[in-house]
Amino acid sequence: MFAYNLDHVGIAVANLDASLAEYKRLFDADPVYRETVIEQGVEEAMIAVGGSFVQLLCPLGPDTPVGRFLAARGEGMHHIALAVDDIDVALDHLRSEGARLIDEEPRIGGGGTRIAFLHPKAFAGTLVELVESPS
Amino acid sequence: MFAYNLDHVGIAVANLDASLAEYKRLFDADPVYRETVIEQGVEEAMIAVGGSFVQLLCPLGPDTPVGRFLAARGEGMHHIALAVDDIDVALDHLRSEGARLIDEEPRIGGGGTRIAFLHPKAFAGTLVELVESPS
Repeated sequence: MFAYNLDHVGIAVANLDASLAEYKRLFDADPVYRETVIEQGVEEAMIAVGGSFVQLLCPLGPDTPVGRFLAARGEGMHHIALAVDDIDVALDHLRSEGARLIDEEPRIGGGGTRIAFLHPKAFAGTLVELVESPS
Repeated sequence: MFAYNLDHVGIAVANLDASLAEYKRLFDADPVYRETVIEQGVEEAMIAVGGSFVQLLCPLGPDTPVGRFLAARGEGMHHIALAVDDIDVALDHLRSEGARLIDEEPRIGGGGTRIAFLHPKAFAGTLVELVESPS
């Protein structure tokens, strides 16, 4: 098997500046970084919450995965991300168990991470992302 | 302000046994506890994931908050819970900032915790629970 931690909870928002201001007002925290990830069609901001993060995701346009999510469901929780030591080992295990994957192979995420998404049908209607940090 | 940590992510499921078995198969973990919380109309199971938990929530019947969530949206992420040191201080702060609350006063949750929910309109369409552990 593979070791993992809860890396972050991703929340889709319509206006990143407004949501960061609201988070600051209610929960008194600033993002540790903010980044545009063209490949995923989002601008994202990471807010440290204990040993994990809340990730705010704002689509760069309507024809992106998060843009379509917002149009269909509105703002709200989008995915959970599990930090894994070795994403290739994790994907091999999940494949061997017949888990439905969105990404058969890892791709590059924000901050030089390697990421892969499981299909929400793999577990409890929940979009799960695997994240391996740069070594 | 108040200090907090990411305590858990709550996921609504239709069949707790089936989801626990699937979690075990894919992610090789057993729940640290499983409890029926009559007041909230759920049977819940907590799975440790690093320093936080994944909480699986199964409604005791259709006419419960999680039962109505499942009927409307299907299985999936339901809420995030922030562990706070003092839930009364946290609620006072949120009230003073005009945050819309579901629970104006804390109530008793699973494991002797004190809990309160913010309304999803308070932050990014996301149901946020505050949790204070028993001292």
